Amino acid sequence: MHKKWIFNQLMKIEPQIMAIVIGTTDISLIPGISVAGASPELTHYTPALDVEYLLLGMPKTMEVIPVTPEGIPTPALVTRAVAGEVAKLVVNAGSRITPKVPYVDLGGEPGRDFRRGPALSCEAARNILERGRALGCELGRLGCIYIGESIPGGTTTAMAILVAMGYDAWGRTSSASPNNPKELKIAVVKEGLRRVSAPLKPLEAVCEMGDPVHLAVAAIALGVSECGGVPVLAGGTQMAAAAALYKGLGGDLAKLHVVTTRWIAEDKSADFMGLMEIVGVKNVYIAGVSFAGSKYEGLRAYERGAVKEGVAMGGALFYALSKGKDVLRLVEAEYERLLSAGVAGNVN
Amino acid sequence: MHKKWIFNQLMKIEPQIMAIVIGTTDISLIPGISVAGASPELTHYTPALDVEYLLLGMPKTMEVIPVTPEGIPTPALVTRAVAGEVAKLVVNAGSRITPKVPYVDLGGEPGRDFRRGPALSCEAARNILERGRALGCELGRLGCIYIGESIPGGTTTAMAILVAMGYDAWGRTSSASPNNPKELKIAVVKEGLRRVSAPLKPLEAVCEMGDPVHLAVAAIALGVSECGGVPVLAGGTQMAAAAALYKGLGGDLAKLHVVTTRWIAEDKSADFMGLMEIVGVKNVYIAGVSFAGSKYEGLRAYERGAVKEGVAMGGALFYALSKGKDVLRLVEAEYERLLSAGVAGNVN
Repeated sequence: MHKKWIFNQLMKIEPQIMAIVIGTTDISLIPGISVAGASPELTHYTPALDVEYLLLGMPKTMEVIPVTPEGIPTPALVTRAVAGEVAKLVVNAGSRITPKVPYVDLGGEPGRDFRRGPALSCEAARNILERGRALGCELGRLGCIYIGESIPGGTTTAMAILVAMGYDAWGRTSSASPNNPKELKIAVVKEGLRRVSAPLKPLEAVCEMGDPVHLAVAAIALGVSECGGVPVLAGGTQMAAAAALYKGLGGDLAKLHVVTTRWIAEDKSADFMGLMEIVGVKNVYIAGVSFAGSKYEGLRAYERGAVKEGVAMGGALFYALSKGKDVLRLVEAEYERLLSAGVAGNVN
Repeated sequence: MHKKWIFNQLMKIEPQIMAIVIGTTDISLIPGISVAGASPELTHYTPALDVEYLLLGMPKTMEVIPVTPEGIPTPALVTRAVAGEVAKLVVNAGSRITPKVPYVDLGGEPGRDFRRGPALSCEAARNILERGRALGCELGRLGCIYIGESIPGGTTTAMAILVAMGYDAWGRTSSASPNNPKELKIAVVKEGLRRVSAPLKPLEAVCEMGDPVHLAVAAIALGVSECGGVPVLAGGTQMAAAAALYKGLGGDLAKLHVVTTRWIAEDKSADFMGLMEIVGVKNVYIAGVSFAGSKYEGLRAYERGAVKEGVAMGGALFYALSKGKDVLRLVEAEYERLLSAGVAGNVN
């Protein structure tokens, strides 16, 4: 009985498509705030490189996959290695560098530094909401849709969105770095908040203090659930911001699912479960994977808090585990392929 | 036994997604060559309006659905009415007017008048081929993918592509008009051919004499079949050009399916089955629907050869029939809705 229930739950959230929403925010250019790229400037290339590599097996815009300044590889590696057979759909919510692979365009724009002025124009936000919802509706007809993200600086804009909407998210979002630069992120958000009078409505919070990606994730999830599908947010603490927007825009949290990695759930520098709780997310799943036994330093680093999430890694691992896959073997094989091709950075 | 075989065949080509590939060619601006719009200039709006209406139920860029100069409504009406629950994905191969709904961009460009010079730049054609194929591969993981089109002037560029590749397609493509302007189309293609020395290779034929859409359809079909899916070209005589490109680019015709309407199959001004034969298409399906009993003149006109195909209408009808739907009732109900909203042109 219990086993059957679990099986049914797993079937219910088996992805038909993984939508990967990409975008940039100029917040990622602030030195020290993001390690989703080898340098602050390179963070603007990370979303494009992530999805090029995810779809094609090789990046196109540059000849290297995204790495942290320490050379730890992008979570896209894990997503590709363990869920290669799942259909992927790239969605561009607003990126300074657009990828050289097919992507759905939502008519958005890259996010600006919210300390200096509004992050997004009203028109871009309206486009993202309307078109994301229409896309989600079409995808929802297929059944279960995973929605992942790639946006360097996203844990800072997620905190900003949540705080601007009135949630106490101060210092509770995670980081791709083992050393979460919480004080810097809090200071940046506080500086931005000076321009506005919180709490703001969902769309205002995004336009003033957000970025294109979290709104697009929420809009797609709304559309999926409105057209009979099952939306699954595949990401870490950032998905608390997406879920808050989804809820604030009228979405039913009973229909929403969030799935992430153990590395996020166990991150003591953040508060994933607490954020899910204050937003009211009911269905949370954790992929209990360990890379501690890997022969590669670049993968063992995940156990020390490097990377943690992104590009739907938690969702991909959750799916792969439900299929009984040997995920570490698959990830190591893919990492070997990238190392021998010379596109995987300098740590192994 | 026989019934079961038919059922299995129908299951095999039940669409997971309908991809609607849109684009424009300046050939449609030649007076008299296309009725896929109320005037030659308006033909450039038709693809955008078609897909806006298909996804949202109302056009956005203008407040009217595409109609012929006589006011006969777009085939998108039928596709929406009978296959509304199938997931749609809009793919922009190259359009002068881009739609205000989410669409996948392939990095192509609008087709130019091939009488004056090449129809497409090499870069645009390469993008369309590479990205269409990558998109098709992802979609193919889902199973069966219908690929439809909306490109006014497409029966002329289809003839041009086929002839440029060395097929005898002179005067054998269909038309959305009951009076197929074959002599005009032949004269236009002949004028273009003066610039080149046929036969040309597939990509050369497209760049010199084609348009963005037929190449995108072929590229998506290639990707679908390469990644284990079932590609179904949902369209009329134009799909002979797409199938020829698919074959010329290395695609396996045994894996390719074409489905269209009875109106195309029975069009005496064209030669649908003959074109399929010379290209070598093996799997052809016809949706045997009649609108003769409709109470609306705008729909009875389909029986006199108006419209005939487009926006995957034949595929949508084939799918709806296999589900046992009362298609005429559904189409009339949708037409009534559009008439009462005042967006369906002037014939009823």
